[in-house]
Amino acid sequence: MKNVTLKDVAKAAGVSYATVSRALSGSNQIGKSTRERIVRLCDEMGYTGNYVARSMVMKKTYLLGLVVPAIENEFMSQLAYYVEMSARARGYNIMLCNSEPDLKQEEMVVKLLLGRRVDGILIVPQSPATYEKIAPLLEQIPAVFLSENLRDQPQSYVSVDNSRGAYLGVEYLYGLGHREILYFGCRNSTTHQLRAEGYLRACRQFGLEPRLHHSDFARSSIENGYQMVKELFAKPIDYTAIFASTDSNALGILKAADELHIRIPGDLSLIGFDNIPSTALPRIDLTTIEQPKKEMAVQAVDMLLDKIEKGTQGYVHQILMPSLVQRGTCRSLT
Amino acid sequence: MKNVTLKDVAKAAGVSYATVSRALSGSNQIGKSTRERIVRLCDEMGYTGNYVARSMVMKKTYLLGLVVPAIENEFMSQLAYYVEMSARARGYNIMLCNSEPDLKQEEMVVKLLLGRRVDGILIVPQSPATYEKIAPLLEQIPAVFLSENLRDQPQSYVSVDNSRGAYLGVEYLYGLGHREILYFGCRNSTTHQLRAEGYLRACRQFGLEPRLHHSDFARSSIENGYQMVKELFAKPIDYTAIFASTDSNALGILKAADELHIRIPGDLSLIGFDNIPSTALPRIDLTTIEQPKKEMAVQAVDMLLDKIEKGTQGYVHQILMPSLVQRGTCRSLT
Repeated sequence: MKNVTLKDVAKAAGVSYATVSRALSGSNQIGKSTRERIVRLCDEMGYTGNYVARSMVMKKTYLLGLVVPAIENEFMSQLAYYVEMSARARGYNIMLCNSEPDLKQEEMVVKLLLGRRVDGILIVPQSPATYEKIAPLLEQIPAVFLSENLRDQPQSYVSVDNSRGAYLGVEYLYGLGHREILYFGCRNSTTHQLRAEGYLRACRQFGLEPRLHHSDFARSSIENGYQMVKELFAKPIDYTAIFASTDSNALGILKAADELHIRIPGDLSLIGFDNIPSTALPRIDLTTIEQPKKEMAVQAVDMLLDKIEKGTQGYVHQILMPSLVQRGTCRSLT
Repeated sequence: MKNVTLKDVAKAAGVSYATVSRALSGSNQIGKSTRERIVRLCDEMGYTGNYVARSMVMKKTYLLGLVVPAIENEFMSQLAYYVEMSARARGYNIMLCNSEPDLKQEEMVVKLLLGRRVDGILIVPQSPATYEKIAPLLEQIPAVFLSENLRDQPQSYVSVDNSRGAYLGVEYLYGLGHREILYFGCRNSTTHQLRAEGYLRACRQFGLEPRLHHSDFARSSIENGYQMVKELFAKPIDYTAIFASTDSNALGILKAADELHIRIPGDLSLIGFDNIPSTALPRIDLTTIEQPKKEMAVQAVDMLLDKIEKGTQGYVHQILMPSLVQRGTCRSLT
């Protein structure tokens, strides 16, 4: 089977090679009708594209690097799903790299993607230390950070309003009559600092005594949450609700509570953060704060393509709104 | 910042462009000591690679297409994690495509990957109908099917012994004293046919009356399992255990059982299939059949790279062994 080339299409359309290529990449330097004619022709002629040759001509690869700590994490795989769908709809493909287990590996995969001449990089950083290591490399290429809030760093990012999310959780618990609300989190990233700040802000607002319980785990996981809360549960439980700064920590709390016959929500109310798919499972049914993962992914792709296609300079901090997802782990005390 | 090129490295090493390129791709046409010297030199000189130029010279892209129905599915994201890690360790990167929502889209992404001139394709097919549509396209390129058993089709694939997995589940239930075991599944793929066959074989072996409950859902999901089992539970429950052909169906059964106050495992034992991460969550704790996802991914990458690098002809059907994961949803009747 002989492949139809871009040259064949250009000849049939009576336009230049570059015009066909631009039309296929959805460039708006080409009129709508011309673009549609060329795309239809490609379709009719069975052109499947030769991106390698096209990359040499256009100095573009139509590839975006997507770096996540581990795609098997359900939060990451949801983001990746929407990133891929929305990038492909705009003519770009995704080169996926896991950056685990450490910062050295993360730096390595970013270098690899630069070598691959991807047109841009979307990165969910491993930790705040990522920023220092990676930021200088990303000066060479359009890049957008995803999910992690970098505060006022001069880098583009899309994240949720983490402070607002924690505030919403406390506000909800307060409305249910809770007055002793424990914050259970880690302090390993700006995201978590912001969640703690939102909690503190809500406490001030509602006249509650703040009760912070922090871990130094580098990463939030069910197992870490479980270990950490077991120590906590060994002491008297003089609070009526826990706001866990991540769903995975909340799942660890659920596990420990079940083992110790602490009823949730009977004895203790519980809220998580992120709204990962597991929280909606039967028997889990965790009340949580939703991060709008689809919207975050779509916005990050849009932002990156603006940089790539329009050469947008400077940086954008796009902060999306979280929302409360009421499920079965919070009890009304009134 | 000026990028160090492959040419610079070749000059410094006193070898040809092609030699450096081969060394970097881990080719064994190059002696070990030469390869190590070149790799060290690349590292010292800060060479990050220019795969685009290299692709033109080598007629290789060092890219593998990975096609999955939806990366957000936790089974797929685990496979993708191990595929990416093991491909990268061998010098290849992954171009990720979701093939949802339908066969037309699946065909489209395969064509896209061909246009991208990936060196090979790994595909988790959507359904048996995939095979007919996709197989002719895949004659152009090394390809390996992943996870789905295609029986005697002339295509390479890696899957688990699905029949054996179902057998193991029934054998375990039989050992616990169960004699009335319902098989709960769909018949939309060879994989599911094989699971049903394994169930029937075990029934013959242990002298049990087979009880098949089949759905015609195109896809297994919690919601589909839930809908389907609610009809089933409306009739008298004259069986002591259910073997669900997927974990997501089993989770749907769990949900319906909880709503109807049917205790699992008190009133009814339950086994799933796949060992997706959700099954290990607190409160879920589902007994299931493990598919060795890491091994499947690694074997599929190895098989594909053998085709790409050694030009291995013909096809291989690699069937891996499943195993029983004992958790909390099965009760002993003895």
